[in-house]
Amino acid sequence: MNTQTQPVPRLGIIGGGQLGKMLCQAASELGIEVTVLDPDPHAPASSVCTHHIVADFKDKSAYEALSEKADVITYEREDLDDDLLNLLQSKGLKVFPDPKILHVIQDKGKQKQFFVDNDIPTSRFELCDTPSAEALASFGYPLVQKARCGGFDGRGVSVIKDDSQVDKTLNTPSILEECVDIQTELAIMVARSQDGACVAYPTVEMDMDSEGNILDMLTVPAPISEEEAKQIETMGCTIAQALNLVGVLSVEIFKDTNGDIWVNEVSSRTHNSGHYTIEACVTSQFQQHLRAILGLPLGSTQLLSPAVMVNLLGSAPEGDTVVHGLDQVLELPNVSIHLYGKKKVSPGRKMGHSVVIGSSIEEAKRTAQTVKQQLKISGEQHV
Amino acid sequence: MNTQTQPVPRLGIIGGGQLGKMLCQAASELGIEVTVLDPDPHAPASSVCTHHIVADFKDKSAYEALSEKADVITYEREDLDDDLLNLLQSKGLKVFPDPKILHVIQDKGKQKQFFVDNDIPTSRFELCDTPSAEALASFGYPLVQKARCGGFDGRGVSVIKDDSQVDKTLNTPSILEECVDIQTELAIMVARSQDGACVAYPTVEMDMDSEGNILDMLTVPAPISEEEAKQIETMGCTIAQALNLVGVLSVEIFKDTNGDIWVNEVSSRTHNSGHYTIEACVTSQFQQHLRAILGLPLGSTQLLSPAVMVNLLGSAPEGDTVVHGLDQVLELPNVSIHLYGKKKVSPGRKMGHSVVIGSSIEEAKRTAQTVKQQLKISGEQHV
Repeated sequence: MNTQTQPVPRLGIIGGGQLGKMLCQAASELGIEVTVLDPDPHAPASSVCTHHIVADFKDKSAYEALSEKADVITYEREDLDDDLLNLLQSKGLKVFPDPKILHVIQDKGKQKQFFVDNDIPTSRFELCDTPSAEALASFGYPLVQKARCGGFDGRGVSVIKDDSQVDKTLNTPSILEECVDIQTELAIMVARSQDGACVAYPTVEMDMDSEGNILDMLTVPAPISEEEAKQIETMGCTIAQALNLVGVLSVEIFKDTNGDIWVNEVSSRTHNSGHYTIEACVTSQFQQHLRAILGLPLGSTQLLSPAVMVNLLGSAPEGDTVVHGLDQVLELPNVSIHLYGKKKVSPGRKMGHSVVIGSSIEEAKRTAQTVKQQLKISGEQHV
Repeated sequence: MNTQTQPVPRLGIIGGGQLGKMLCQAASELGIEVTVLDPDPHAPASSVCTHHIVADFKDKSAYEALSEKADVITYEREDLDDDLLNLLQSKGLKVFPDPKILHVIQDKGKQKQFFVDNDIPTSRFELCDTPSAEALASFGYPLVQKARCGGFDGRGVSVIKDDSQVDKTLNTPSILEECVDIQTELAIMVARSQDGACVAYPTVEMDMDSEGNILDMLTVPAPISEEEAKQIETMGCTIAQALNLVGVLSVEIFKDTNGDIWVNEVSSRTHNSGHYTIEACVTSQFQQHLRAILGLPLGSTQLLSPAVMVNLLGSAPEGDTVVHGLDQVLELPNVSIHLYGKKKVSPGRKMGHSVVIGSSIEEAKRTAQTVKQQLKISGEQHV
């Protein structure tokens, strides 16, 4: 009989934003010691981690210090330096997901090629090192141009409908993608353990904002057939398997107007599209990620209740964080509010999120709209 | 329209045990800054609070320091010094629950008299300053002797069945209580806000261990009639109202073999009998307590699923904490494990708890038994 004894491994997290914070919260439930590396002394995770190394993500000595305080390392960012992650591995620490996966994920060109190599349906694309009007025209409009590296939450993405919009071209090594005629945007979280077991969460529907770049409202379960759900789950596990991932993975998916399913992008980490799992599933994506990277068995992904999630974004003006209307939204039934504790607001910054559970999705959506209207997070200038 | 803006008040918690820790976890979800006062640098809450003042609970300078870092104070203990809480109030901080309530709660004699004064059914009792064989015989056997002050988790309680057991008499100012012929032990959590609103959680059933002093397994909902449930809810709110409580309150109740309901004891704080609310209710007792003391509206107490809770107690030998079988119990469906992160184990010490949710209480009970059998927390001597 296999029994594991504690002290369980000490955890190190590179990045102390909201993802790191919620991972710390999950770790604290299991009594796990966590050290966070983040340059911001007030990073969201700083108030819930056991230790905080305040240092730049490129500071080698910080990684040396981290290696003294942790046995297993994970990270909430995709823009990390390979050599520094390898340094941790060379000191005998386990790093999950394996930094090699970042090579595939960080570069949208390599990510697309990975889909093709693994028979994952994805829209037609082309690498484009030096974007030009000619290159775009030759690929064919309408198209989506994505910077190969560094894009995030809509940054580094440009939708170019025809040659009148060539001024929207990003001047950076990119991929060009055929526009999918989107009927619905979907997403799924899967988790894979060290022994290769893979579990899938339910597929969610994502309403994007009018710019199409940031999540406006997430609904679970998504209004898809059982067959489509199975196809998407299999796809998610195939990707996790092909990446040899340990941890959780988010897959963004388009369902086109013909009903066909296309993979858009993957992130090999906990993800905004999985925040609803804290309230609505037996095992949250954060505890699931911990289970995977600490060598514990994966937990149930069962959905306990239909749920709707909205992001709480900062409003103008910039400044010190002020939250308006918290008492009003806490009056609403079945509403959970997560505020990340960021000290500074800027317009569009993710300051928190809210999950509404309910027997009816329509009702939960109405409540979530009310939350968005009533809870405003804006900045205040102290003079 | 009443809208509250943040920065919300900064919270101070006196006591950094598991109750303080889970309160910190709830506070971190709402982005609230917390300072904990506790003499143990490794107290469970130390890893999830924003600041930790490491000092004795009687250290006046620590309260001075706390007053600089917090606007609202609460506490997880009942044995605090009145003068020090008054000091915080004199500096303009809000202290909830009001220290005056501790006068009633701390002294089991005053607590009993409070029940009588407020028409709360409770077993017959007598104050007994100098317990003697004569005093006990005159009160009548069988009886329960309780130390007026300082009792906790069965300490300071002696059940004396007849005069052959007078050697079990505690030599301390006490109350003598008539033994209730218990059919079932029940409990309820209620919460009361600053504007006097009161909400009740569902009544739970508590199976006590063979010694009758520490909670073995908690089941919710309790197998009682709707009428009994209403009677108990009303009783809980009456007590909270009479105490002018702000925060949560736990009420322990006996149902006797005639089906009559008697209040045993109350605690004016978050309580072991309410831990199940984290997983099984819309609003956890910890967030509810925060809402009450921070002047936010109370949340829904709706039960989302039947649930069973067991405490995870330390086993011999004493020593540095080692957890056995965590991987086995995390294989079980619908099991949540909370480990408090205490560095030292002693037999019977509360090291964590587990909540099992499920459609059937019988199934959840079986799973909870398995958790208790498989997860062992004992000490290791490092030499």
